[in-house]
Amino acid sequence: MIKAYAAFEPKGELKPFEYDPGELKAFEVEIDVDYCGICHSDLSVMDSEWGAMPYPVVAGHEVVGRIAKIGADVHHLKLGQNVGLGWHAGYCNACAACETGDQNLCDNAQATIMGHHGGFAEQVRAAANSVVPIPEGIDLASAGPLFCGGITVFNPLVQFDIKPTDKVAVIGIGGLGHLALQFLNAWGCEVTAFTSSETKKKEALEMGAHFTLNSRDADEIASAVKRFDFILSTVNVKLDWNLYLSTLNVKGRLHFVGATLEPLDIGVFSLIGGQRSVSGSPVGSPATMKQMLDFARQHQIKPVIEKFKFSDINQAIDHVRSGNAKYRVVLCRK
Amino acid sequence: MIKAYAAFEPKGELKPFEYDPGELKAFEVEIDVDYCGICHSDLSVMDSEWGAMPYPVVAGHEVVGRIAKIGADVHHLKLGQNVGLGWHAGYCNACAACETGDQNLCDNAQATIMGHHGGFAEQVRAAANSVVPIPEGIDLASAGPLFCGGITVFNPLVQFDIKPTDKVAVIGIGGLGHLALQFLNAWGCEVTAFTSSETKKKEALEMGAHFTLNSRDADEIASAVKRFDFILSTVNVKLDWNLYLSTLNVKGRLHFVGATLEPLDIGVFSLIGGQRSVSGSPVGSPATMKQMLDFARQHQIKPVIEKFKFSDINQAIDHVRSGNAKYRVVLCRK
Repeated sequence: MIKAYAAFEPKGELKPFEYDPGELKAFEVEIDVDYCGICHSDLSVMDSEWGAMPYPVVAGHEVVGRIAKIGADVHHLKLGQNVGLGWHAGYCNACAACETGDQNLCDNAQATIMGHHGGFAEQVRAAANSVVPIPEGIDLASAGPLFCGGITVFNPLVQFDIKPTDKVAVIGIGGLGHLALQFLNAWGCEVTAFTSSETKKKEALEMGAHFTLNSRDADEIASAVKRFDFILSTVNVKLDWNLYLSTLNVKGRLHFVGATLEPLDIGVFSLIGGQRSVSGSPVGSPATMKQMLDFARQHQIKPVIEKFKFSDINQAIDHVRSGNAKYRVVLCRK
Repeated sequence: MIKAYAAFEPKGELKPFEYDPGELKAFEVEIDVDYCGICHSDLSVMDSEWGAMPYPVVAGHEVVGRIAKIGADVHHLKLGQNVGLGWHAGYCNACAACETGDQNLCDNAQATIMGHHGGFAEQVRAAANSVVPIPEGIDLASAGPLFCGGITVFNPLVQFDIKPTDKVAVIGIGGLGHLALQFLNAWGCEVTAFTSSETKKKEALEMGAHFTLNSRDADEIASAVKRFDFILSTVNVKLDWNLYLSTLNVKGRLHFVGATLEPLDIGVFSLIGGQRSVSGSPVGSPATMKQMLDFARQHQIKPVIEKFKFSDINQAIDHVRSGNAKYRVVLCRK
């Protein structure tokens, strides 16, 4: 039996919950969870915001732990090895996306926390090829958020071939944005943070931004006309996207990793006139997660976290709900 | 004095008009116009649809002709040489776009028909570096539309690195779309035409489409889920863009060259889930126009045109306005 914390209804308090994971499949591993970040999408799933979930829901998909059991067909991991697990706990391994190394775009991927029990638990199971070894030199306590928030903002830099000579901006300096600033600074780019908070402005500059612009000041944004080659939006609210498009250089890209629910109402003239693109992407593949970990180690990039004990999970979740987390909350076994 | 046909008011009849072009500048050439295509954007400009124009307006920006005069500093063109002239009759030659070979994205480029007199005339002037020599083997009478309609649909294949293994689709089989089908077929792609017309369906298959889908049949479109790597929209009307997005494969791109006036109301989840892009682009650079001409000659691609005499320019324009042109109207000197 695996001991977990489960949600039993939307916005409900999490309660201890035990489940029998069954026999370990040949391609799986079981991980002893040491740390687990709390991501906004954990709340969205526990709250059935993205569609009705079958309860109980065991969320948690920013897992850091040690390999505890190894399936019969798994030969590249060993007991006790430090690993991470993110949004996906398995892939179909047969579709074109999987075949070409884009497992994160697999239509039949197994989400870690939907139809599967996640990392708010003592153990979690996952297909071995969705589990990423953590190299020496990465701080384990803060690594969890790299496996969802981190890879979500790192992956576009790889996918869209962002260049160190690019001028880039990040909209929203939170769990994702504070990591984007660090990655982009280390990538060599000139980095601007869009934020409306005076406190975050200061912190953004400390975390790698070279400039800040007030995201609520239309004049200030408009003054940055054609300045950016790449803008990464991590927010989930509607902004004046056409205003942001005007700050893109020719051939620039406005890229969404924040799941804004309202349609984008983009004017096509701005796209045509400057050969601009608007796009989005989800997490990243295991190979890109490995690149990210190497890059994070090389540049000493790590999530800024607040720690909670697993037994204080409800306080931890309330803190994430409050929007005041700086910048990511991590549950710790010890 | 240059003899031209000018519009004197929105939707007004064109009338003969003479103007003094002044002394030929050192970087310019003068072209004796032999042929000039009529593009929808000629109508938009003559009608002040994109902003109030100072009249008289001499439109015409799909010019084929012969070099008649050469400025003192121009050494790469010779008298009598066959050349084409498109949307731009000059560039600033100093901005980052110009410096990097993206002259078509120059903010200070000189439009051929805005603040400058175009090709509905016996002669037209242009900066020599906006004029493109036409190689032997290109049919001069039908070449005009390549310099605006043609380059507009050819350029994205170069800019976005469309691959012969890609599955592609074209929305709208008109002046631009019928050229897109030919280019994409020669590019090696599997080509689908979206069209609502039975006649155009047949013609689309003749011009290079391998498949057609009814652009007004939501079920038929929905059946093409995740089929395309690249969709090129040449229409200027609002369609159900999210439905079209659903026909994009992961990493697919919906690209606009048709100037739809209404915002795109794109759902961000579809972009994020499949790492999809939405983009736009205008015409192309002189270098890309040269590539296009070589490719057109190699693959015997040419615009399907209806010819009118210059003296019948008003009938020709009415025919374009009617939407019944197949597929492009060209004015002929002889």
